[in-house]
Amino acid sequence: MRKIYLEDTPLQEAQQGVLSKIQFERQVEWIPTQKALGRITAQSIYAKVSMPNYHASAMDGIAVRAHQTHGASEQNPIRLRQQEEYVIVDTGDPIPAGFDAVIMVEHLHQVDEKTVEILDPIAPWQHIRPIGEDVVVGEMIVAAHHKLRPVDLGALLAGGNVTVPVIKKPKVAIIPTGTELIPPSEDVALGEIIEFNGTVFSAYLEEWGAQPDYRGIVKDHYETIKNAVLEAVKDSDIVIMNAGSSAGTEDFTYHVINEIGEVLTHGVATRPGKPVVLGIVEGKPVVGLPGYPVSAYLNLEWFARPLVNHYYGLLEPERAKLKVKLGRRIVSVMGAEDFVRMTIGRIDGKYIANPLTRAAGVTMSMVKADGLLRIPPGHLGYEQGEEAEVELYRPLEQIKQTVVATGSHDLSIDVLHTLLRKKNPGQFLVSSHVGSMGGILAIQKGEAHIAGVHLFDEGTGTYNIPFLERYLQEQEAVLIQLVYRQQGWIVPKGNPLQITTIKDVARDGITYMNRQRGAGTRLLFDYLLKQEQLDRSGVYGYDREAISHLSVAAAVAGGTADTGLGIYSAAQAMNLDFIPVMEERYDLLMSRSFYESKDGINLLSLIRSPEFQAEVEALGGYSCRDTGSLLYQNYLD
Amino acid sequence: MRKIYLEDTPLQEAQQGVLSKIQFERQVEWIPTQKALGRITAQSIYAKVSMPNYHASAMDGIAVRAHQTHGASEQNPIRLRQQEEYVIVDTGDPIPAGFDAVIMVEHLHQVDEKTVEILDPIAPWQHIRPIGEDVVVGEMIVAAHHKLRPVDLGALLAGGNVTVPVIKKPKVAIIPTGTELIPPSEDVALGEIIEFNGTVFSAYLEEWGAQPDYRGIVKDHYETIKNAVLEAVKDSDIVIMNAGSSAGTEDFTYHVINEIGEVLTHGVATRPGKPVVLGIVEGKPVVGLPGYPVSAYLNLEWFARPLVNHYYGLLEPERAKLKVKLGRRIVSVMGAEDFVRMTIGRIDGKYIANPLTRAAGVTMSMVKADGLLRIPPGHLGYEQGEEAEVELYRPLEQIKQTVVATGSHDLSIDVLHTLLRKKNPGQFLVSSHVGSMGGILAIQKGEAHIAGVHLFDEGTGTYNIPFLERYLQEQEAVLIQLVYRQQGWIVPKGNPLQITTIKDVARDGITYMNRQRGAGTRLLFDYLLKQEQLDRSGVYGYDREAISHLSVAAAVAGGTADTGLGIYSAAQAMNLDFIPVMEERYDLLMSRSFYESKDGINLLSLIRSPEFQAEVEALGGYSCRDTGSLLYQNYLD
Repeated sequence: MRKIYLEDTPLQEAQQGVLSKIQFERQVEWIPTQKALGRITAQSIYAKVSMPNYHASAMDGIAVRAHQTHGASEQNPIRLRQQEEYVIVDTGDPIPAGFDAVIMVEHLHQVDEKTVEILDPIAPWQHIRPIGEDVVVGEMIVAAHHKLRPVDLGALLAGGNVTVPVIKKPKVAIIPTGTELIPPSEDVALGEIIEFNGTVFSAYLEEWGAQPDYRGIVKDHYETIKNAVLEAVKDSDIVIMNAGSSAGTEDFTYHVINEIGEVLTHGVATRPGKPVVLGIVEGKPVVGLPGYPVSAYLNLEWFARPLVNHYYGLLEPERAKLKVKLGRRIVSVMGAEDFVRMTIGRIDGKYIANPLTRAAGVTMSMVKADGLLRIPPGHLGYEQGEEAEVELYRPLEQIKQTVVATGSHDLSIDVLHTLLRKKNPGQFLVSSHVGSMGGILAIQKGEAHIAGVHLFDEGTGTYNIPFLERYLQEQEAVLIQLVYRQQGWIVPKGNPLQITTIKDVARDGITYMNRQRGAGTRLLFDYLLKQEQLDRSGVYGYDREAISHLSVAAAVAGGTADTGLGIYSAAQAMNLDFIPVMEERYDLLMSRSFYESKDGINLLSLIRSPEFQAEVEALGGYSCRDTGSLLYQNYLD
Repeated sequence: MRKIYLEDTPLQEAQQGVLSKIQFERQVEWIPTQKALGRITAQSIYAKVSMPNYHASAMDGIAVRAHQTHGASEQNPIRLRQQEEYVIVDTGDPIPAGFDAVIMVEHLHQVDEKTVEILDPIAPWQHIRPIGEDVVVGEMIVAAHHKLRPVDLGALLAGGNVTVPVIKKPKVAIIPTGTELIPPSEDVALGEIIEFNGTVFSAYLEEWGAQPDYRGIVKDHYETIKNAVLEAVKDSDIVIMNAGSSAGTEDFTYHVINEIGEVLTHGVATRPGKPVVLGIVEGKPVVGLPGYPVSAYLNLEWFARPLVNHYYGLLEPERAKLKVKLGRRIVSVMGAEDFVRMTIGRIDGKYIANPLTRAAGVTMSMVKADGLLRIPPGHLGYEQGEEAEVELYRPLEQIKQTVVATGSHDLSIDVLHTLLRKKNPGQFLVSSHVGSMGGILAIQKGEAHIAGVHLFDEGTGTYNIPFLERYLQEQEAVLIQLVYRQQGWIVPKGNPLQITTIKDVARDGITYMNRQRGAGTRLLFDYLLKQEQLDRSGVYGYDREAISHLSVAAAVAGGTADTGLGIYSAAQAMNLDFIPVMEERYDLLMSRSFYESKDGINLLSLIRSPEFQAEVEALGGYSCRDTGSLLYQNYLD
């Protein structure tokens, strides 16, 4: 195969390039109006009948001739005789010919069975709903290319349109390729990867009004893939291929489209998302998406959504935007449009945004993102504290109601989060893990409401407070005891290398997995080394940094480390053994303004609830004996 | 039955009153993750496997031991032997034990079948996706009470969650009541009303994530309705009754709920929407909605949506808001919260909003509304030109792209609208009918882009231009010829009263239906009277004002008028006869800024297209012989 290179086509140019070449053949189908919610009208629809289609009584009462009521008053009651001068009508009844007003039953005095007396005159057409008051025959109800809303269905039925012509949903074939892929499973063998992108594509396409057609996993084999695409274009409007869109030796997408159709673009100037292939096979657009989830989903939105909207003749939707203050510096590369997933929190009335990982392979960064920062190709990025505009992934009202948690992560925060969602529908919690020191700095800079901290101070032999006294002098804050927890050596089942003390960890031939700078667990490890007067350089792997307890456990489970320091529940999650080293205090630092807010008071009452404490202790390795107590206050007044 | 009176409970108090009394029993169901889009999680969900669940090669190439590559350079190439020093890996392959980096195939020089040469060293862990890079075992993927988005499904599957626990959808029974109601039909007899509210309720409830259970039309009979409610509460979470919620003699909702349960509220302080009944029957909330569509849909949103969200433990969503300038004065009553449906247009960079009809029975006012203006109970309303905030019913990007048409209505505007939607996905048109004079005033005040006008000037015997010279001196505008059309007498089939001239219309015993002040057709009628020196007072019905040609035709079809002046297509729509009187010119007035804008140029090219003209002439009663010509320009420079 001829060597290929990726282009750097600007995003908008690539989008226009495909759209301008595609002329969809729209099919029309007539469906019952009652099932047409969300469908797109194929033509303008006019009323066939009027609503009401007769002059109808708007009240329960009697239909009269208005002129026969003129002059009625308390002094001069007028009597009317049934049939000749009035007819009894209920709400919705037709007004009999020759009558032109309705008097409400409440205003009648029954004289005898056939006679009523009235004390007030009535104006013509009063209490009558005229023909067509709601919908009149011939009136346009909705235009062509309109997305039908609930109220449109009502008006269509009111106008006698029992069926409606809608544009048939475009069928979008999804072809996942990859020899290592398996269908979703709880049971994943070595070398197998769960195919989940196809499910995400299907769900997005469904949301956009298309009909996804998931065609099953195809092995990485040129001819097989080619045949799958040739089959798919036969009965689809759009074809999505996944993975193999780059320029490597096993990337077949470019070559397949090039052989059986035309490649329009290979590579866009974006980060992430660069290696996309856009082409046409037998008149149908084919979008070859990269394998990394974040790249794939962004490209799907950039190319598949406009194709679906183009098919329907609909405007491409825009996301709501929000001005935020950046909590960190964000560097961008020149020449590519950067798409940075961001968390957003509202702290003391300001919206603070921080970047999530920029790795294209981390699906969780899309799950956690509150918004997207787009940095144009010619822009170098932003300084910390600068203002920028982000596109929102979550409704603003949710972001306003979100407790922003950071610092060190602990499973007890997840338990608290779950409890919060269960008890308070209107309240959310997002947590990012930046280590204990990062947490203190976030509170100091006003970038979070709460932060988990477990920093052991060698000088005093105590936790957290000495650090707060050093780093939080300017910021009003309180420290709440959350949990005691066991730290220990995470080792493979059966502890084959017999690791029990820090001296064992520093032994020759033992590979250690450390934590990132600023993590409380790293400080604890340093302290343990110092106690035994051991040198860092003697620990093989000291420089490898995992960013969570679970990542340490994952390294041990995967065999790339023999041990690491971490918490009991992380060892348990990966089915590993745990050798306790010491119990530490894991506290919650809160800004004073949050502590005193309604949300803060509410959170504290959850922390102090027996339900929370029981659930945490059930995890193992925890004690809640002092949970919820106030440890420290730094008030400036 | 005991007499009942409606209360004036403030809206929020009524909402809280129901929510505080209801404790839903949520059911949990496990469903395939692939089918869980839009569902609400019943608990927090954690990863069961890691993604990847082994250290995986991120490239096609060879796995090596990084330390064995140290010192490689062009001057000092290093040779590696297969199996001992390297192993071939493809993207996604597991890294064999003992190896700790991957060199891309592109950077290898094959020396022989078992030997490669490299020119650069590689750092440990390069091109390796570590275990759990995406999702790590034990990590919380989504919290409880989370609405699942496409990307969440991906992360759940990546974490080995093949099924997910979601909250079962709440079942909402819908009971339409009314003896006059019939199922949707094109064939509506006298006294029958199509039941369409139930379809609208179902569609809204579906959008909100509930499971609507439409239980069919129930006749207006106390015991029948009572039994229907008793049946419904048995297997529903919420019950909706429609119509009969007021305090009239045939309004049974209050009495039924009062007998078999507890009425919490009867009547809220809103306009429209006042006569709602809120109650509890056997622990289930029952919402008795008014019959008028607008009242019903607003109440559904006020009471049923919060119940659904309360059931799920979700936050009530907010609509986007927009500051607008009011084109008309809006008067509000004290003591009730007013909800005014508004059209919104963006004219010369300003958002101008105008009220639609406030009648509770006009479904089309909900279809046409771009937004909702809420006027608090203590507020008297707004002056013309004042600023106010509206809740948006349509996305702002659509409003920005909308041509605002007003003035007199003609079917050719509908044809133009349809053509515009078909040719320009991104362009919308909204039209309101305020008569020709109203159209000129709207252009003068900068409240519309285009206006249909057909004003006959008696003095000159010409159309429109004399009026523009009189009323549009300050405003730059152009007048474009749209169509010639026939005006004539609309009469019942066979013209039983032999109406052919204005003298016939003024005959004794003939009932006329006139048009509203400012309508071109009314001016034409006045001119015809004057020509024959007839007096208005001699025309029975001169003071009855219909607001459209179709409304005039509806009056004739319904027998409340013998004739009216109008256009051919209106007569045809209602299957009536048409006696031509004269051909008139119906022109399009445009502001200069719109005429010169991209949208204006585009619209004009549609008007001048053969497609438009052919479709208009096919309607009958039209001629397009001068369509698209420029008739008049009022430029101030």
